[in-house]
Amino acid sequence: MLIREVGERGLIAMIHRMQPTPAPGFVGIGDDAAVVPGDPAGWLISQDMLVEEIHFRWDWSTPEQVGAKAAAVNLSDIAAMGGIPAAVLTSLALPANLRVEVVEDLIRGLTRTLDRYGAYIIGGDTVGSPDRLVLDVTILGRPGASGPIRRMGARPGDHLLVSGRLGASYAGYQLLSHGGHWPGNNITERSVLVAHLTPTPRVELGQAVAPFVHAMTDISDGLEAEVEELTRFGGIGAEIQIDRLPIDQATREVARIYGVSVEEFALYGGEDYELLMAVPGSRLPNVLEAANHVGVPVTDIGRVTDEPGIRWQLGGEEVEWDGRRAFDHFNR
Amino acid sequence: MLIREVGERGLIAMIHRMQPTPAPGFVGIGDDAAVVPGDPAGWLISQDMLVEEIHFRWDWSTPEQVGAKAAAVNLSDIAAMGGIPAAVLTSLALPANLRVEVVEDLIRGLTRTLDRYGAYIIGGDTVGSPDRLVLDVTILGRPGASGPIRRMGARPGDHLLVSGRLGASYAGYQLLSHGGHWPGNNITERSVLVAHLTPTPRVELGQAVAPFVHAMTDISDGLEAEVEELTRFGGIGAEIQIDRLPIDQATREVARIYGVSVEEFALYGGEDYELLMAVPGSRLPNVLEAANHVGVPVTDIGRVTDEPGIRWQLGGEEVEWDGRRAFDHFNR
Repeated sequence: MLIREVGERGLIAMIHRMQPTPAPGFVGIGDDAAVVPGDPAGWLISQDMLVEEIHFRWDWSTPEQVGAKAAAVNLSDIAAMGGIPAAVLTSLALPANLRVEVVEDLIRGLTRTLDRYGAYIIGGDTVGSPDRLVLDVTILGRPGASGPIRRMGARPGDHLLVSGRLGASYAGYQLLSHGGHWPGNNITERSVLVAHLTPTPRVELGQAVAPFVHAMTDISDGLEAEVEELTRFGGIGAEIQIDRLPIDQATREVARIYGVSVEEFALYGGEDYELLMAVPGSRLPNVLEAANHVGVPVTDIGRVTDEPGIRWQLGGEEVEWDGRRAFDHFNR
Repeated sequence: MLIREVGERGLIAMIHRMQPTPAPGFVGIGDDAAVVPGDPAGWLISQDMLVEEIHFRWDWSTPEQVGAKAAAVNLSDIAAMGGIPAAVLTSLALPANLRVEVVEDLIRGLTRTLDRYGAYIIGGDTVGSPDRLVLDVTILGRPGASGPIRRMGARPGDHLLVSGRLGASYAGYQLLSHGGHWPGNNITERSVLVAHLTPTPRVELGQAVAPFVHAMTDISDGLEAEVEELTRFGGIGAEIQIDRLPIDQATREVARIYGVSVEEFALYGGEDYELLMAVPGSRLPNVLEAANHVGVPVTDIGRVTDEPGIRWQLGGEEVEWDGRRAFDHFNR
């Protein structure tokens, strides 16, 4: 059996099975971040690796953009737990013939983005690499006053809300795959390239809505996969209104140019780094106010249901949706 | 300027310069592990990356040995702080055509070694890689009752002690480089191959001696480089008795076969993962007793002096020693 046949979720399940249950106070494998106990509130910790040619290419991104994206994907995990970023460790595998200025720019992108959210580098490792650059960031954050917000906890009747826009990152990826280049030729191109190359982690939003949500996760692998994650336990499912998905005009234009359904970008594209929340009806006004307070749009896209699986609705009618595979780095 | 010209220490210094000073309670870049504040005693955290073809080769190591070594090098950082291992995060970059059994064996080596010291995996990341496997482990540990034991703090007159044996790992590396294979043809080969492929982190020793040492670090980059680290601040230096270095018979035999000075193995070989301690004379009996208690030999190899630099002695006479470059993955 090969890695490509098992996929990311299969691998994580295997590693999970090979591990004993964490000690009391710990939250282990299976959420956006692990939880490490301590007073006053312990720590959230998460780790994300970027590999040259898989996650970034030097002809697509500047070194500063690569560093900024590495920071953003890690910050997004802390955001998804409603946490407050604090510190990171950074491991770099570097080819011996790489120019030092590339690393300097990459670290600058990383530290500038971290600094924006109050975090900084406290350690890491630098090692050689035969050819490609690999960058692995571990982030530590504090839980907010509501404690760590988990992926599990959604209840039937909860509203499902997403922040920002979906599919723009994948539209940017499509553009780059077809020969597009940063900074793009017009506002449409720039808009989707920014989404792909330097996504914005929803750190303030995560903290602001934390007191009002039952469950939350970030949207890194496409909306469908994340709705599945949010409804994985407790015999629940979801009903999603496809025509309510927040897809912006730039993303629609790119999808049209390449003749792809824009819903595919939103549902399976991945790397959006928006937040998906399950919110009880009574708390909906609080979430909308909190989102308004931090200036991030949120959209109500459906409900949590009391039966497993996802049902798709379009124009008020239930539709069949031939779910493509979720975004998987081993099958990209 | 290229990475190979700057080297690992130059790179770390650059990253350090680009960072703001950590907040109170944190210890940032520059020790075996960073310190994250919290009650009762906060957390130690460290990160080490292993790259295929740089740190390991599939024709030299079994997957289980690679996992065990990844655990050991991280556990060694916690040992060097006198800490108690607790949990790890593991990022894996995996080629799509790798067999899943390889990853399973690697994780087994990792978890078995961690389990021996009471630690387990709580998170991480799995991503694709174009061809080579990269493994990055972040370890969390608790400081011991004496708090985090730093690299700085050695005082003139302190005895310098090292645990175990030096140079054996590099002897194993030499053997492998010359066509040797695990498990080796005899006890000599097996002894140095074990040292290189599955080093033993000195976790119990680190905790046992912590109350009695002024400073401590693990010996990952060769003894000379680590003595420099231990005497970097405060205008101090060291006097090392070359003929007291603990070098075992197997290492001497391998050095003789390849016509290399065995002292070079010990001073510049790297990857020993033994502990180097600065111990005040009054505490020497305590350290010897503590080491005896946990069954690890320690050897008194010299003294901390009140002038910068390392002086080498051989048979009671000061000798010139043409320091080769410290072990550096970018120039290996």
